[in-house]
Amino acid sequence: MSTTIEKAHTLSEALPYIQRYHGKTMVIKYGGGAMQSDELCRQVIADVVLLSLVGIRVVLVHGGGPEINELLAKIGKEPRFVGGLRYTDAETMEAVQMVLCGKVSKQLAQLIGEQGGRALSLSGMDGRMLVAKKLDSDEDLGFVGQLTDVDPTPINIAIAGGYIPIVSTVACGEEHGTMYNINADSAAARLAVAVGAEKLILLTDVRGIPRDPKDESTLIPEVSLSDVDALTRSGIISGGMIPKVECCAEVVRGGVPRAHILDGRVPHSILIELLSDQGIGTMIY
Amino acid sequence: MSTTIEKAHTLSEALPYIQRYHGKTMVIKYGGGAMQSDELCRQVIADVVLLSLVGIRVVLVHGGGPEINELLAKIGKEPRFVGGLRYTDAETMEAVQMVLCGKVSKQLAQLIGEQGGRALSLSGMDGRMLVAKKLDSDEDLGFVGQLTDVDPTPINIAIAGGYIPIVSTVACGEEHGTMYNINADSAAARLAVAVGAEKLILLTDVRGIPRDPKDESTLIPEVSLSDVDALTRSGIISGGMIPKVECCAEVVRGGVPRAHILDGRVPHSILIELLSDQGIGTMIY
Amino acid sequence: MSTTIEKAHTLSEALPYIQRYHGKTMVIKYGGGAMQSDELCRQVIADVVLLSLVGIRVVLVHGGGPEINELLAKIGKEPRFVGGLRYTDAETMEAVQMVLCGKVSKQLAQLIGEQGGRALSLSGMDGRMLVAKKLDSDEDLGFVGQLTDVDPTPINIAIAGGYIPIVSTVACGEEHGTMYNINADSAAARLAVAVGAEKLILLTDVRGIPRDPKDESTLIPEVSLSDVDALTRSGIISGGMIPKVECCAEVVRGGVPRAHILDGRVPHSILIELLSDQGIGTMIY
Amino acid sequence: MSTTIEKAHTLSEALPYIQRYHGKTMVIKYGGGAMQSDELCRQVIADVVLLSLVGIRVVLVHGGGPEINELLAKIGKEPRFVGGLRYTDAETMEAVQMVLCGKVSKQLAQLIGEQGGRALSLSGMDGRMLVAKKLDSDEDLGFVGQLTDVDPTPINIAIAGGYIPIVSTVACGEEHGTMYNINADSAAARLAVAVGAEKLILLTDVRGIPRDPKDESTLIPEVSLSDVDALTRSGIISGGMIPKVECCAEVVRGGVPRAHILDGRVPHSILIELLSDQGIGTMIY
Amino acid sequence: MSTTIEKAHTLSEALPYIQRYHGKTMVIKYGGGAMQSDELCRQVIADVVLLSLVGIRVVLVHGGGPEINELLAKIGKEPRFVGGLRYTDAETMEAVQMVLCGKVSKQLAQLIGEQGGRALSLSGMDGRMLVAKKLDSDEDLGFVGQLTDVDPTPINIAIAGGYIPIVSTVACGEEHGTMYNINADSAAARLAVAVGAEKLILLTDVRGIPRDPKDESTLIPEVSLSDVDALTRSGIISGGMIPKVECCAEVVRGGVPRAHILDGRVPHSILIELLSDQGIGTMIY
Amino acid sequence: MSTTIEKAHTLSEALPYIQRYHGKTMVIKYGGGAMQSDELCRQVIADVVLLSLVGIRVVLVHGGGPEINELLAKIGKEPRFVGGLRYTDAETMEAVQMVLCGKVSKQLAQLIGEQGGRALSLSGMDGRMLVAKKLDSDEDLGFVGQLTDVDPTPINIAIAGGYIPIVSTVACGEEHGTMYNINADSAAARLAVAVGAEKLILLTDVRGIPRDPKDESTLIPEVSLSDVDALTRSGIISGGMIPKVECCAEVVRGGVPRAHILDGRVPHSILIELLSDQGIGTMIY
Repeated sequence: MSTTIEKAHTLSEALPYIQRYHGKTMVIKYGGGAMQSDELCRQVIADVVLLSLVGIRVVLVHGGGPEINELLAKIGKEPRFVGGLRYTDAETMEAVQMVLCGKVSKQLAQLIGEQGGRALSLSGMDGRMLVAKKLDSDEDLGFVGQLTDVDPTPINIAIAGGYIPIVSTVACGEEHGTMYNINADSAAARLAVAVGAEKLILLTDVRGIPRDPKDESTLIPEVSLSDVDALTRSGIISGGMIPKVECCAEVVRGGVPRAHILDGRVPHSILIELLSDQGIGTMIY
Repeated sequence: MSTTIEKAHTLSEALPYIQRYHGKTMVIKYGGGAMQSDELCRQVIADVVLLSLVGIRVVLVHGGGPEINELLAKIGKEPRFVGGLRYTDAETMEAVQMVLCGKVSKQLAQLIGEQGGRALSLSGMDGRMLVAKKLDSDEDLGFVGQLTDVDPTPINIAIAGGYIPIVSTVACGEEHGTMYNINADSAAARLAVAVGAEKLILLTDVRGIPRDPKDESTLIPEVSLSDVDALTRSGIISGGMIPKVECCAEVVRGGVPRAHILDGRVPHSILIELLSDQGIGTMIY
Repeated sequence: MSTTIEKAHTLSEALPYIQRYHGKTMVIKYGGGAMQSDELCRQVIADVVLLSLVGIRVVLVHGGGPEINELLAKIGKEPRFVGGLRYTDAETMEAVQMVLCGKVSKQLAQLIGEQGGRALSLSGMDGRMLVAKKLDSDEDLGFVGQLTDVDPTPINIAIAGGYIPIVSTVACGEEHGTMYNINADSAAARLAVAVGAEKLILLTDVRGIPRDPKDESTLIPEVSLSDVDALTRSGIISGGMIPKVECCAEVVRGGVPRAHILDGRVPHSILIELLSDQGIGTMIY
Repeated sequence: MSTTIEKAHTLSEALPYIQRYHGKTMVIKYGGGAMQSDELCRQVIADVVLLSLVGIRVVLVHGGGPEINELLAKIGKEPRFVGGLRYTDAETMEAVQMVLCGKVSKQLAQLIGEQGGRALSLSGMDGRMLVAKKLDSDEDLGFVGQLTDVDPTPINIAIAGGYIPIVSTVACGEEHGTMYNINADSAAARLAVAVGAEKLILLTDVRGIPRDPKDESTLIPEVSLSDVDALTRSGIISGGMIPKVECCAEVVRGGVPRAHILDGRVPHSILIELLSDQGIGTMIY
Repeated sequence: MSTTIEKAHTLSEALPYIQRYHGKTMVIKYGGGAMQSDELCRQVIADVVLLSLVGIRVVLVHGGGPEINELLAKIGKEPRFVGGLRYTDAETMEAVQMVLCGKVSKQLAQLIGEQGGRALSLSGMDGRMLVAKKLDSDEDLGFVGQLTDVDPTPINIAIAGGYIPIVSTVACGEEHGTMYNINADSAAARLAVAVGAEKLILLTDVRGIPRDPKDESTLIPEVSLSDVDALTRSGIISGGMIPKVECCAEVVRGGVPRAHILDGRVPHSILIELLSDQGIGTMIY
Repeated sequence: MSTTIEKAHTLSEALPYIQRYHGKTMVIKYGGGAMQSDELCRQVIADVVLLSLVGIRVVLVHGGGPEINELLAKIGKEPRFVGGLRYTDAETMEAVQMVLCGKVSKQLAQLIGEQGGRALSLSGMDGRMLVAKKLDSDEDLGFVGQLTDVDPTPINIAIAGGYIPIVSTVACGEEHGTMYNINADSAAARLAVAVGAEKLILLTDVRGIPRDPKDESTLIPEVSLSDVDALTRSGIISGGMIPKVECCAEVVRGGVPRAHILDGRVPHSILIELLSDQGIGTMIY
């Protein structure tokens, strides 16, 4: 019995955290390693369903790089990179669209359903939610796009109907008949601002921003908007962390109070961040 | 960190239970020992606020015998008992009304407010929610009443407005100008049926129905409606347990699926019953 | 028949007054002598029910000094006064709370119910409607409070549900676990501003402000906000009238068009004021 | 002052009557003498506005025989009667339509507006509210019709929007391009049933049904449905009273609890009937 | 079959036009020649019903000069003109009211009903929608009025209920008991501004504004607000066209994007204007 | 101009058809040849947008066999047929899901958006709209499923929000982690019954049911439910037509008044069927 009482006590301790976020919207970008492990994936989805049940509104934005690679390999498509970024020709674009909108998002919707929640999986083509043009860049990247317009109505309708919206970040082109692949982090950031989110959470494969890039244990727990530039110039924010931090900074500038870079490999990392004192990862505010 | 993950895991385990009771109404009769200890009282109220926050609708019906005795002692009123029941003359009735409606229910409302919830404390006179006549009994008990009409509209309005309704079981008399004291267990039972509750929970000072009245550890976990008579005839249900079990049986007959006799002295007993596998106390179904 | 026609004619004459106040909110502070006589009390309540039926929204704020004294006498509590104000220790506070929230307001709710209306009796602890701190004063007055926050949502919910809200002016303390006794006139004033009332009506034991304090017949019918100071300096507004006029002035400054000091001993004084040309008492505007 | 108190007392006495009819619908057929006198007309309209303000829903169905005659005289149209009923040729029909829909109903709407109410004047062509065919009769009466279909939606929309509906009893023909003149009493009866009215009130030029047709003072106050036939066979209900009683009997059969034949020449006869003990006229139930 | 396909193609071509005006309000002033021919009238009404069915909100404001003349002739009333305008004495005013509100508008309501639509025919007295005073003019014109207040609530209620509002332009006088005849073009203009219309359409007996008044084929298709003065000074806008163009200019100044002078004698001229590329008539913008 | 008038006349002729279907729901199964031609596809989508704009609620259920074959060819997957039906192993199932949910439905959503409409593309995993089990059949067909449960809530939410729902007929398995491919005709039929559709329309590659299978011109325009068996036994309904007719019969039995087999190769065939007298294809009723 005493263990049961302890468990009940743990539930009871979550009360002030649930109160704080009740009725608030969290945009969670979910991708990378945490999505590859079936066990972790089930846990993340269970946590999302739990949050939605206690009155926290979750918008789940997903990636899917490995699944895209898998299909490209199957159809014998040689990947081509330009300046470190994937060149997306029409055939690749079709594969991206099929994998994100047809495979990954529908599997997430099914998992949520199996855990007792209800989801609607949406893409930028649904209700013309995301509209994009070709990414401005020095070299041609094909159908890699940047957002020019965001209409979050389908997300709002899903939430109002009691559904958890899942978003695949493929966008309509401004010109007819074309679609663009959008970086999921940056689409999540735009949506977080558009829906007036309380937080953006990027679930990643790292523990957060380390002070010493070689030593994960030197985690910086909080970075204010005014510190971002200095940390970047000093090289502490570097490499793949730069665009992630930039997404976070963008949403904070757009009025979202806090953005978090969390380690998706830690079980229940979203619950720990939201429903306990134990902040994990790095928070940008 | 590992403790934090364990705590998050505990939260995660509550998911299916929250799903089961989401949007359902629980009528909780709260009184006796669990109400006397400040620490236990705070815990019960925190649990009630938590349940309401995760989408479970709680109606809190309270007693207050010790507080009534305290006021009667102060005003030098000699208690008088008739066949084991308190004789309630007009002066006693006024004391009952003042203590239940003016002291206990308002303190509970304040405690809920201090824990971040919002409550409306109601009595049978509010919107003529409870109407009663003099209790049929062999000997005159004064203003002890039995309910003749229940209109749960004030409770429904409170719930619809996001408030936790608290009910003091004083009723309007059918004749003008009189009020009646109503047994809180039986008022809770009538309200549970009237609001279409999923459960009635009687928080008491005992662990449930013991097979051997002298040994609390011989708890009977479940009693079906069809077993109640036999258990009563055999003397296993006896003494003060008889009216409690009768209340439970009445609500089950009235369409409420389950009624529970729980030990209010166990910390978080409501959470344990509702949000874990660990049934405690005795369930009548 | 001709009397009947005259009566119908009288009803007909009320038309323009009902039109003027239809859908408007009146906060009526009810206390003192008009509350002591059973016959007057029934009339006042009947008038309140009538007003609510013809589309005028009434919020009834009540006092209860004599009933408090009665309970204090019963429990053998010696009243103690500091500078003319009652010192309210913890025991007195509990008595105040029990009498106002548990006795007076519930009796009013019952009377309204018996006259065919529906009421919800509320206190400052319900939905944390009234929050207070210790009154700033030269000498310690115990649990006499002054309002720091007013949330009229419970009143609005009651009105929207077709109920007449009754308010007992006991407030939550800002610190946990304490309650404060609030002067009913001044709580009525704060609530009148908070709900955007059309009028505040103080039902008192005097005819209004007399020009000659010794001669009630020298009634001043109207006092503009700009005249209040001069009348106070000249001694015309004096004694117990000063805080009443100050309440009225406060609500007018807060945007309520008119406040009235009426004689609750005159039968149907509220109807006369609202539904006829015959202004009675003193109006502050 | 004492007269003022008496007047307030008179208002107060109306409370139980207002409670009884609050939210109920009254269909009032208004015509004849009470409509010819400007002073009486103003009073009737003021009473209608008052009733609507105290929450009683009034549907005003009007006649207009004298005004029709006036226009026919102007255009030099010789009236022609067939078996006591007016033969309505196309030209007469157009006059009827213009007078009822264009003159009388708009004047009533304007009067209501001038008294502070708001009205929408409707005819059977509005929303195809009334559909008719040629009246079955031995001799051809031209465009005199009998209702075949009633759709009270326009009335319900007017009431829901806070408007008093006024109805001119001209109906669409089932065949295209024709309109029919409908007897106002019988249209009022059909509408009373269609809107689920609480009462039908026929405002007439007589005091009700007299026991002795030659002596108005021998008024029969109440006639049950089961007595109608006997009273008709015995000749007590006779002449022009027969169709009026038949209308009343029809609505009672259709589920309207009570129908009244009132004397529209008595000032405030509607108020007297609805808001006092003093029943006047004859009630069919 | 090929004709059928062509017809379907024609329907299909209307798509972008329907999209453009979906949910927008069009105020159509309907009078003159197009109203005299039964066949044209049926077509106009069918077009109005079609527009309302495809989600375009039509407010139909009608005239009725010829019908008024007809009644005046019948009653032997000699027309009298003052400076080219009809002098409207009380008797004429009554005829105007009867013809517009009682004959023309009810016939239009019936026609709409026969085509499967639903209409509510309203006048300025309904809900005091139009309030007027005597027209300022050098010579006395009797009951010719100019609008002082417009309350479009009855129109909005009709639209919200799925009805097509028809408006007869007779107004309440500011003083009690009087009504005024209002020029239908100018009432339509005021209403177009009050309801926030997308367009005002004046259906007339001419093709639009001709460059050469003697040659209709010299139609000016578009006139900007800034060109109106010059065109008037140069005499191109002249005679009866001046007040029509002034109405159009007034609504454009009032925020209505476009006003049109269309030839009501052309079959389906409203459909052609709204649902095709083929602008007809003259547009003022 | 005369052509324009003719076109307007054609629009006008559609009025009674639009009235008949206004507010009704049409489930359109779209696949086969009409989906392969870009030009036809654009026309079908334009027609769907037009219908939705004139108040007809369209649910678009799509197929995608050729696109699935295309992807299977790309990944070098050898098709395998069992008794004429495609054997669907796990890899094929994933391809089906990606093509239908990720490619075809999103392209349709984009096309609708480009035509000025708004669509939400849904699958059986969204909100667990379609739940299935393995198809009962003599030989193992892998992940070919049959529906066991349909919850049309996501469709209703889309329609209520003003979106056109598009449905890809992939279903959740009753067991966790599996999905099933559902025949689009039969899923459309189940959905038509679930949403209470007015019609099911199967857009196919044939003109309808021919009396002589070798001669398309011998089209049978209407088949009643009672004739289906006889026509099947006589061999007139044969081959691939049998399951199509069975779908139609099933929806008619389920309460949908009419089902149509239309030739999607005819331009605007849906418009012709719905908005003209010219029935095309075969109707089952």
